[in-house]
Amino acid sequence: MSTTAGLVIPCKAAIAWEAGKPLVIEQVEVAPPQAMEVRMKVKYTSLCHTDLYFWEAKGQSPLFPRIFGHEAAGVVESVGEGVSDVQVGDHVLPVFTGECGDCRHCKSEESNMCDLLRINTDRGVMLSDGKSRFSISGTPINHFLGTSTFSEYTVVHSGCLAKINPLAPLDKVCILSCGISTGLGATLNVAKPKKGSYSCCLWSWSCWAGCARIAGASRIIGVDLNPKRYEEAKKFGVTEFVNPKDHDRPVQEVIAEITNGGVDRSIECTGNINAMISAFECVHDGWGVAVLVGVPDKDAVFMTKPINVLNERTLKGTFFGNYKPRTDLPSVVDMYMNKTPLKTTWTPMTTSSSSSSFSVRVKVPVSLQGGME
Amino acid sequence: MSTTAGLVIPCKAAIAWEAGKPLVIEQVEVAPPQAMEVRMKVKYTSLCHTDLYFWEAKGQSPLFPRIFGHEAAGVVESVGEGVSDVQVGDHVLPVFTGECGDCRHCKSEESNMCDLLRINTDRGVMLSDGKSRFSISGTPINHFLGTSTFSEYTVVHSGCLAKINPLAPLDKVCILSCGISTGLGATLNVAKPKKGSYSCCLWSWSCWAGCARIAGASRIIGVDLNPKRYEEAKKFGVTEFVNPKDHDRPVQEVIAEITNGGVDRSIECTGNINAMISAFECVHDGWGVAVLVGVPDKDAVFMTKPINVLNERTLKGTFFGNYKPRTDLPSVVDMYMNKTPLKTTWTPMTTSSSSSSFSVRVKVPVSLQGGME
Repeated sequence: MSTTAGLVIPCKAAIAWEAGKPLVIEQVEVAPPQAMEVRMKVKYTSLCHTDLYFWEAKGQSPLFPRIFGHEAAGVVESVGEGVSDVQVGDHVLPVFTGECGDCRHCKSEESNMCDLLRINTDRGVMLSDGKSRFSISGTPINHFLGTSTFSEYTVVHSGCLAKINPLAPLDKVCILSCGISTGLGATLNVAKPKKGSYSCCLWSWSCWAGCARIAGASRIIGVDLNPKRYEEAKKFGVTEFVNPKDHDRPVQEVIAEITNGGVDRSIECTGNINAMISAFECVHDGWGVAVLVGVPDKDAVFMTKPINVLNERTLKGTFFGNYKPRTDLPSVVDMYMNKTPLKTTWTPMTTSSSSSSFSVRVKVPVSLQGGME
Repeated sequence: MSTTAGLVIPCKAAIAWEAGKPLVIEQVEVAPPQAMEVRMKVKYTSLCHTDLYFWEAKGQSPLFPRIFGHEAAGVVESVGEGVSDVQVGDHVLPVFTGECGDCRHCKSEESNMCDLLRINTDRGVMLSDGKSRFSISGTPINHFLGTSTFSEYTVVHSGCLAKINPLAPLDKVCILSCGISTGLGATLNVAKPKKGSYSCCLWSWSCWAGCARIAGASRIIGVDLNPKRYEEAKKFGVTEFVNPKDHDRPVQEVIAEITNGGVDRSIECTGNINAMISAFECVHDGWGVAVLVGVPDKDAVFMTKPINVLNERTLKGTFFGNYKPRTDLPSVVDMYMNKTPLKTTWTPMTTSSSSSSFSVRVKVPVSLQGGME
């Protein structure tokens, strides 16, 4: 048992007091974990666009003050009653969605959309008692996605923690708790590699290209409006580019033309509805599979001619790459440890917060650079 | 070699001289098969709604005079140059779409949409020389779907013929050459049974219900506007019914309510666009799969909120149940011969044409009885 178990821990956290206003790093009190909860020391956290989206609070109800952050890695400090999966000292990745293990989704081999712990962006408190574990001078501070990793310590439901190989470098594997796994799973679990050599179309340059290379795609077409990304994207494995702005006809027609009828697999990560439609319509009839990953505007409508479906195309959606957080994420970390050829040269920028003991790895927020619009 | 090989065969056929006008049974001359073609004696043929649709010619360019018919069974009379798969006397099913064996689709394990022999409703001649093998007093009569089985003899591309178990009763297995296989394949090959007990929603009563039972569905919900079909549909295995007219909210909401979130699999056979959308939106998030079979109006647009996809639903289309005609159809006949429990009590009406030696098995044309409109 740690010396702090059962006690309130004062520590530093990055507080978002208002939408769009700079985070303020100050002291917060972190209450002990309750039943089925875990308090962890956050060793590394990344900045994901989802943090920025909810910090801006332009598309949803604002919930402030709040501690953002959800892509992270750390060590278990103490556990609440009933927690048996992890113990003090375990290395863990917190995940923005969970796996209770008991619901129909958790018992299904096909779903990871846990009924109890599925992502909830509107909830700022813990499930068990509807209260926050964070406070400043008695004022509760809202949680975010059940993770709130922009804090030296945080409290997470045990169903939202993946226990990982203790030898895994936490500064590297922290990014497996959201983005990388989402893209990797979208490719490996959902689009699924086609046997033999095949083509893949990726809508948003980022890390997905590396994932397509893991899955064996020989031809990886990046689609993006921003030509400045192309050189960087090549490092991830993108073999050619299409910029919709360069053509006066639908980009899916351009892609079909250069691929003799369409790509074998297509993965859409921008969330732009037009990109979603193009990503579906650019796959080959007979066997093409399109996977939607990006989250669209709530008023968007997906539209296509039924013949595009009837010609044996498949449209799928995925959430966190269809990985079950507790069950599957440890094996994703093992893929990294076993040096499964990621074939990506991506090196994140790293900044250290001077007033805090945890590091923040900053991923370039793709959507902020101008996505598919 | 048959005594008629190489000779023109005069025989009876049902000629459609004009759109929507009664077929006239009269003598037609059937030329010998050319390279890669087979002339077969049609022993039994069914009447499918697709025949009626093109006979009415309301939705497409009329092509008359024409010999309709595509769902049939017969015996090879003679073969053209280069045909090695079948020989005189083989029992065969002609298929409205083909399998050349050489194109990318035929070489793909995932597709049956042969580049060379894919269904072509506008073509009234043979591929090899662009001519018809049918004539009356020198006037060419158009082929239909490359099959034209409303004739005692017809000429078919060898890639559109499945050689079947010679013990199979041709009067029964003729209906495996189109409708039954389409529904069976949509269920077994495309929707694919879910492990264990599962629910399935079927849009159009017909024979599909039997297919869902083969695939192990424990709960089979039939959706239809016509309550008169319900008693008949129970015989096929439908366990409950939903009539969209009985509800003042979208039928997918009704289905989701009675199935605790949606069905596991959904198969849409009406071709009505609203039914297609409902069929997709009524599947459960996390694992639900919807399969579109019915052919819609050419101006129809499939529309849904992207979140319905992102929540891990799958939308697929199928053509002839994803069966490759030559490779897979023989095994479908074997399923029948091995008494795979079809669990259907369907008995087609049978009429015999008095002026012709071939029998016509008349399936009730589902769409003509008022589909999902």
